[in-house]
Formats: sequence, C-alpha cells, structure tokens
Amino acid sequence: MSTTVSRTPKTIRSAMSRSTPSTVTVFGQDLVAMLGTVNLGDFAYLELFKRLPDERESTLFNALVVTLVEHGVTPSAIAARMTYLGAPESLQGAVASGILGLGNTFVGTIEGAAKICQERLPQSGADRISADERMSDEQINALAEGIVAEYSTDKRMIPGLGHPVHKPVDPRAQKLLRLGRELGFDDSSSRLVEALSRIASERSGRVLPVNATGAIGALASTLGVPAHVARGLGVMARAIGLVGHLLEEKADPIATTVWNRIEAEVSES
Amino acid sequence: MSTTVSRTPKTIRSAMSRSTPSTVTVFGQDLVAMLGTVNLGDFAYLELFKRLPDERESTLFNALVVTLVEHGVTPSAIAARMTYLGAPESLQGAVASGILGLGNTFVGTIEGAAKICQERLPQSGADRISADERMSDEQINALAEGIVAEYSTDKRMIPGLGHPVHKPVDPRAQKLLRLGRELGFDDSSSRLVEALSRIASERSGRVLPVNATGAIGALASTLGVPAHVARGLGVMARAIGLVGHLLEEKADPIATTVWNRIEAEVSES
Amino acid sequence: MSTTVSRTPKTIRSAMSRSTPSTVTVFGQDLVAMLGTVNLGDFAYLELFKRLPDERESTLFNALVVTLVEHGVTPSAIAARMTYLGAPESLQGAVASGILGLGNTFVGTIEGAAKICQERLPQSGADRISADERMSDEQINALAEGIVAEYSTDKRMIPGLGHPVHKPVDPRAQKLLRLGRELGFDDSSSRLVEALSRIASERSGRVLPVNATGAIGALASTLGVPAHVARGLGVMARAIGLVGHLLEEKADPIATTVWNRIEAEVSES
Amino acid sequence: MSTTVSRTPKTIRSAMSRSTPSTVTVFGQDLVAMLGTVNLGDFAYLELFKRLPDERESTLFNALVVTLVEHGVTPSAIAARMTYLGAPESLQGAVASGILGLGNTFVGTIEGAAKICQERLPQSGADRISADERMSDEQINALAEGIVAEYSTDKRMIPGLGHPVHKPVDPRAQKLLRLGRELGFDDSSSRLVEALSRIASERSGRVLPVNATGAIGALASTLGVPAHVARGLGVMARAIGLVGHLLEEKADPIATTVWNRIEAEVSES
Repeated sequence: MSTTVSRTPKTIRSAMSRSTPSTVTVFGQDLVAMLGTVNLGDFAYLELFKRLPDERESTLFNALVVTLVEHGVTPSAIAARMTYLGAPESLQGAVASGILGLGNTFVGTIEGAAKICQERLPQSGADRISADERMSDEQINALAEGIVAEYSTDKRMIPGLGHPVHKPVDPRAQKLLRLGRELGFDDSSSRLVEALSRIASERSGRVLPVNATGAIGALASTLGVPAHVARGLGVMARAIGLVGHLLEEKADPIATTVWNRIEAEVSES
Repeated sequence: MSTTVSRTPKTIRSAMSRSTPSTVTVFGQDLVAMLGTVNLGDFAYLELFKRLPDERESTLFNALVVTLVEHGVTPSAIAARMTYLGAPESLQGAVASGILGLGNTFVGTIEGAAKICQERLPQSGADRISADERMSDEQINALAEGIVAEYSTDKRMIPGLGHPVHKPVDPRAQKLLRLGRELGFDDSSSRLVEALSRIASERSGRVLPVNATGAIGALASTLGVPAHVARGLGVMARAIGLVGHLLEEKADPIATTVWNRIEAEVSES
Repeated sequence: MSTTVSRTPKTIRSAMSRSTPSTVTVFGQDLVAMLGTVNLGDFAYLELFKRLPDERESTLFNALVVTLVEHGVTPSAIAARMTYLGAPESLQGAVASGILGLGNTFVGTIEGAAKICQERLPQSGADRISADERMSDEQINALAEGIVAEYSTDKRMIPGLGHPVHKPVDPRAQKLLRLGRELGFDDSSSRLVEALSRIASERSGRVLPVNATGAIGALASTLGVPAHVARGLGVMARAIGLVGHLLEEKADPIATTVWNRIEAEVSES
Repeated sequence: MSTTVSRTPKTIRSAMSRSTPSTVTVFGQDLVAMLGTVNLGDFAYLELFKRLPDERESTLFNALVVTLVEHGVTPSAIAARMTYLGAPESLQGAVASGILGLGNTFVGTIEGAAKICQERLPQSGADRISADERMSDEQINALAEGIVAEYSTDKRMIPGLGHPVHKPVDPRAQKLLRLGRELGFDDSSSRLVEALSRIASERSGRVLPVNATGAIGALASTLGVPAHVARGLGVMARAIGLVGHLLEEKADPIATTVWNRIEAEVSES
C-alpha cells in the first residue's frame, strides 16, 4: 500500500481548463471564441478527444449521441420520474437516478460491441490504417464466423444484435452505418458488425439485425472512442433526454399512477 | 388521499417518442431523418421545447449549454473523480455523483437569475412581445433599482453577479449577451441583468459583473426556458464535462493524492 | 468571494475517527471494544450525537429508525429496482437511486413535523427543561389551535398528519408515542402533534391521525435531532430496506414486467 | 427478446411488507410489536434473511455492520461533502453521492473475500454442516496454499489481506474473528482467511494481516450472506456514517478549503 501511495502523482493537475480574468480555455481552445460557433456535440467531442472534430467527424459524432438521447419511457426514465415524485426540490437528483441505470444491461451493449471491434480488428480507429491494410470482406467474414462460433459455444448473446421491435432492420442502425460510409470513414468495424448480424441470424434461425447500440459501438470504434468510455456516450446523451422526461412528468405526471397500480397489485398478491 | 388518487391520470402516457418496426419519432419528428443533420444541442432544444430550433435559436441555445460543460476541477468534478476511484466498474455512478452537486449553490444561480427575469419582466420570453411593449431603458433601470434595494434590505446576494476571477467583466457573459443581441433577440432580460450589475456595483462599491450564470439565466428566459428547468441546462451540459473528467482521471489520476493529503492532514489535526 | 475564502477554515480536520496501528476510535470511543456490544442503531446514534445513547435513548432511537426501514414497494423502491435492472453490476448505484427519492414529498414530512416542534415549543429536546417549565395541556392546545388556523389560512397541509390506509389511527405512530412516554421522556412534542391531529380533524371534518412521520418528527425532536437532519434518519434506514428490495428483485424480479406494461400502455396512448 | 418477456413474471408481487388499517407486517413479522424490542441491526438482518436473528446471530451481525459505518474522511465521505457544498437542499443527494463510491475498489474486497469462502469451502454457511464434515486445519491449509499459488500466478492481490496502517494485525479483524469463535460459530471461513494471511505473508515477505473487509467477508459467509450481497452490508452501514459526515460538514466545513486548494494547485500546474 505504501508502494501504491508512492506511485501516485505528487502534484494535483488537470489539463482541461484554464482561466485568467479575461480568458477561459478548454483543452487549449478559447472558450469565448467557441460560443456561437461550436455546437454541444462538437464540444462533447472536444471533451473526449482534446481537439475539436473536423466536419465529417462532427456529423458522425453528433449523429451517434443524438441516437442515444431519447428512447421513450425506459427503466431509466421510470426511475427518474419516481425520484422526482419523491424529491421535486432536486432536479439533479432525479436525473442522477436515471443515469444510474445506464449500466451493463442497456448501455453496456455499446461497450460490448465496441470491444469486439477494438479487440478483433487490427488498428481499428478513424483512418489510422492505410487502405491496403484494411481487411477484405473475406477476412471480415472469417473473423465474424469465429466470433459467432465462440459466443455460441459460450451460450452468450453477441452484443449489439437483435431488437424486439425494429425487425428485420433497425432503421437507426441502418442510417448510422450508411452515414459513416457516405462520410468516407473506414468501414471495417461496420462490416464486422454487419457480418456478425448476417452469420448469427443464419446460425440461429432468428432475425438478428445490427441494432442502434451495435452500430454506435462500431462507429465509436471508427472514431477512436475507447471501449471503456463508450458507455459515456450514452450517459451524456441520456442526461439530456432525462431532463425532457422530467419536464413532461411535471406537466403530465405518471409516477403516482404507476406507483398506485403497483401497490394495489402487490397488496393483492 | 383518495382525492389525490382520483386526480391522478388514469392512463399512463407520454408524448415523447413512438416506435414502429421501421420508424422512430421523437416529439413527432422522424429520428432517422435527424441523424446526420441535427446536432446534439438542437436535439436538447427539441427535448425542452418539443420542436427543433430555428437557426438563431440553435446558435444561442448551443452557446448557453456549451458555456456550462467545463468549469475545471470543481466540487462536482472532485466528487465524480472520488467516486470513480472507489467504483471504477460504474462510469455512470461517477457521473451521477458529480451531477448531484449541481444544486442551489452553483447551478441554482442560473435559476435565480432566470426567476428575476421571468417574474419581474412582463411577458418575458423570445419575441413574444411586440417592440412597443418592450420596457424602455428608464423602466428597466427603475426596476433594477427596486430589486437591488430589496435584496440589500434582505442582505441577500443578487444571483448571477460577481466572480472571484473574472473581473471587471466575465468574458463568457459578455460574449453571450452580445451574441443574443447580434442574433436579434429581444434584449429586455439582458438589459435587466446588466442594470442590476451596474447598480449593485455602485451601491456596494464592489465589482459585480454579470457572470456566466447570470447571462445564461437572462438568455434562457429570452428563449423561454422556465426558471424551474433552468438548472436542467447545467445538468445536461455538465454530464458531458464529467465524462471528460473521468477520462482524464483514468489517464492521469488525482483522486488518491487528494485523499492521501486530506487524510494526512486530518490525522494530524 | 475573497472574503468567503478567507472565512473558510485553513485546516482540514475531522473529529470523527482516529486510527493507530493497533486502535481505531470513533468520536473518542474505542471501536474494537464496541464490536459485539453496541448495535447498529446505537452506533447511528453515536454518529449523530457524538456519544452513545443510554438505555432508554437506545430503545427509542432504534424504534424510530426501524419504523423507517421498510414501507413496501414505494416510488423509492421502484426506482432502485429499475436501476438494478439496467446496472446489475452496481448494487450501490441501485441503492443510491432509491435514496435520491427521499426528499421533500415523503421523508420531508418528518422534517416538517420536527420543525413545528422545534420552532414552536420552547426549549424542546430531551429532558432539557425542568418539569415546571413544561407547557400545560391548555398551553399546548392553544399553540396547536394557532398552528392549525395558520396552515388553514395558507391552505397548507400540516406535515405528519393523515394516512390513506392507517385510519382512524396509525398503529406505528401510536406505538412510538406510547413508547416515548413509557420510557419517561418529556412528552411536550408528542402532545403537540396529538393536539394538532385532534384539532385539524375537527376543523376539517376529516380523519387526520398522527402518522408515522409525524410521530418520528416529534420524538426525534424530543431526542434532540435537529430538524435539518431529520430526513437523515429516513435516509439511513431506507438504505437498509433498499438492499432488501434488491435481494428480492434478484430472486423474484418485477422491474421488467413493470417496464413492459408501462411501455405497452404508452405506445397505445 | 419476446422469449425474455414471456419468461418474466406476469404478476407484480412482493413478499416484504403488508398493511391493513391497523397492522403492518414485514416478512410476516408484526412491525408494531418489533418497535421498542428490535434494534436496527436486527431489522437489517430481517431484510436480508426474512427472519429475525437469534441472539448470537444478532451479536455477530451487528458487529459486522458496525465495523463498516465509519472509516474517517474516505473518498466516499469527500464526495458526499463536496456534493453537500453544491446542493445543501438535498441531504439525500449528498449521501447518495457518497454511496456511489462503495464499489469494487473498497467494499468490493468484502465481496471478494466472501466469494473465496463460499466457492472454495464445501457447504459454507452458518452451522449447516455437521462437525465431522468440517475441514481439518490441514485441509484448510492445503486449500489456502492452492489459492495463494493461483493468485500469485495471476499476479492478483488476495482480497481482504493487508492494511497500510493496521500492522502487524488489524485490531478490528482480530476482534471480529474472535467474536465469531466465542459465539460458537463454525470457524471454517475464519480459518481459511487466517491461513491465506499466513501463507501469503510468508510467500511475499510482506506483512499481510487479515483486514476488516477480509474478516467481514469470512464471517458474512458464516452467517450465510451470499457473496453478491456482501457489498450491501457496506452500503447500509456507510449510509449511516455519511449522515454523520454531513452533520460535521455543516458544523465545521472542509469542502470549500479542499476545493480552493485543489484549484490553486491545478491552476499552477
């Protein structure tokens, strides 16, 4: 433990932000100059990559996070609305309560899909490989065959595939994957998740489209978002959506009805 | 209580999102069509106002939330980093921990400034009053004189004024207020907070510039964000910034050092 | 702001706990000696009062917090279970999510009842007044008449009165109030909430028994718990109950069913 | 996914609590009868085991959770105090913020130690094995030898061993392990963690006493707390301690000083 202590940095430092009386910089960029020119998604990119995105990175990154903002009355939104009923004085507490459900079950599938792309594809990440280093479709297919077999043996679901409503394709995933290609990004990760979808569907006899989290996991890998940070995309996006849910809850509440119904059913059980 | 129950909606409903196998709509807008064209700030606007912003609303709204993303190693960021040290398995928990500190002390000043604008100015809100209904500078000054006197009597600080570092002006506030004017928005709220700054500075003999939260409170009122939702702007923005802090904490940690130093000092006290 | 800074303590200190290689003390008490002799409620008392309770304080304090542990499938428990569905990797996150709903609406009524007792009764607090300083029943009644009239004028509910199920008496409140008397505590606070219940019931023509939070607010005041900390009793107790709910949720889950039903109803609305 | 849905329970039910106008039961026990006789730790036991503890279970269980309440100004307490500075209106938010840090790094070691006991020892759990089924000291030693070798090969730390301050023994662990024996519980789990400590110390040449979390992991296994719930003991205990920290923070604040110092150091870096 003394070793641990001595290994920790002696100086407390952060490179994120600097202020003088007349300036504020964020990762070396002049904040004041960015106001009015940089949108929220681009600023989120700056927080993750320490630089602003170019135009096509901006388009793809904003599309990925926009996809994650609003998924209707999910468990996360239900938790936030229940919390707001009990503590209306604390909007931040209700949002926090909803964010806490963005874990392994839901947002974790982005992480899972990103992990597959980042661990199995050589040098994944935006354009960091030359065209002739890219895997051919045959290579991608062989890779996908192996992964499907592996998950099948372990009786595990491949993250990022399948959807209860969006069948036979998830229109959000389809759009995001197309967008990545139209913008000219390397599509190795996209081809991998598409191959996984095709092969897993054939093997299982079920309809297993690439879903939104699968596409986001693949394209986040293309942009260079490390897998361990991928769920952060969901967290930042959903914080926005949860504020929207609390606005609706205030105007047209459902929490008391949900509670009353559950309580009535429980007391009869 | 039975009254309470009967007053609650019988039906659980939400107008936020709808899905069919091949479509997703958010507040009636086609989500798939928005991917690649709508940025994250505009989508946040959609969550709050149930419609997309026009171009100048987009510019101003994005500027307001961008201002709130990153304020350095604040108490909120310290809490998030401390939590990440203890629970690295749960990025969402660390972000939630940081969000919980966005309450009355810090983000509440946006709410306070917005409240003053929305309660004291007739028909505040984006362009909802005709030009000849707008208050003259003399009227705004008289209003501000009254508010400063009132707060002075109650020995309360006027929210949105003063800054420990940014003196004699807060460059972020200055930029935001100018941006609102350049975009052609009604500047009644802006004139009010500027008058409050001028009069409060004179009365107190201290330098009390409009600060970032004061400008955001005024301009959020101009855009029509209700005061009770104003802290939601801070929550959604800071969720983004906190993901950035956790990325830095993972790469270049400070939490253990902070903890060791505090513990050492406490044990000597 | 520089004033603020200079007013803050220069030294970081805490009187709560001290460790040497062979000892640990908490508020000056030997922790090791307390293990096996002090129960969890008594230790909670130590955290609040910096000393261990005597026997009757122990009995009453444990009864108060035990009352708050388990209230069935409340909004707080629903939020925790929803969060656990999304993030099963983080039991602490699910408990935190449930705790966040312990705000003004529910646990705040303890605070409200305590506030009435502590602000309206002279020298409230355990036995800190001599017998002949205690208010007579007539004085308590007159005080209660005034409070009921005041709340009625403001159209506010008196905190700690009324219950949807427990009528005409709340058996938990009845037991706690009796326990306080049997243990020989000053019953001024208890007489006050009982008088409020009687007078408010008469005035309104409704059955408004002292409920559990009303009795706890009164008796917490008797023990000397400051009103602003009263909701802390609910927080510490419910953290225990929420762990119980998550155990049940793991063994016999309801969160997915709740979610599916809400989603089905919303999509038909 | 449709399979998932159809496998979920159709009925929403909970066996935890029932209310009639004049009664409340928790796990079938009369709550009113328990007020004044059952302490908070025993009630926590009821939440976990669906029955009240007998006397020796009560003593050991209360000792385990009392050990976890107060560990001084830990990262968890720092997070709670920072959050309270920003949101003093929400005591529950500050406690939640502190609870969120009770994850894999700190409280997770209880889980890790419990897992070793529960996976490696046959039929672990309170007295569920007859005396002649218990492992001999030789068998325990052989088991421990294997575990130490395994962890050493994987270069992993054995959870529950070692402490930066409490050397050569952790007085809390020593007391808890002795208490378990004095109360007559099967000591197989205790012997296992003690053997691990002895062998790991020998192998590594470092002083690696059983620490508090190691002893709690072992004795929680003896009592029959499943490993996946073990961190719940920490969560319920620390919620109590965090309320204590917020009381101290209100009376004698440190958060602003910590923040100012960090900010000053960061801005010089």
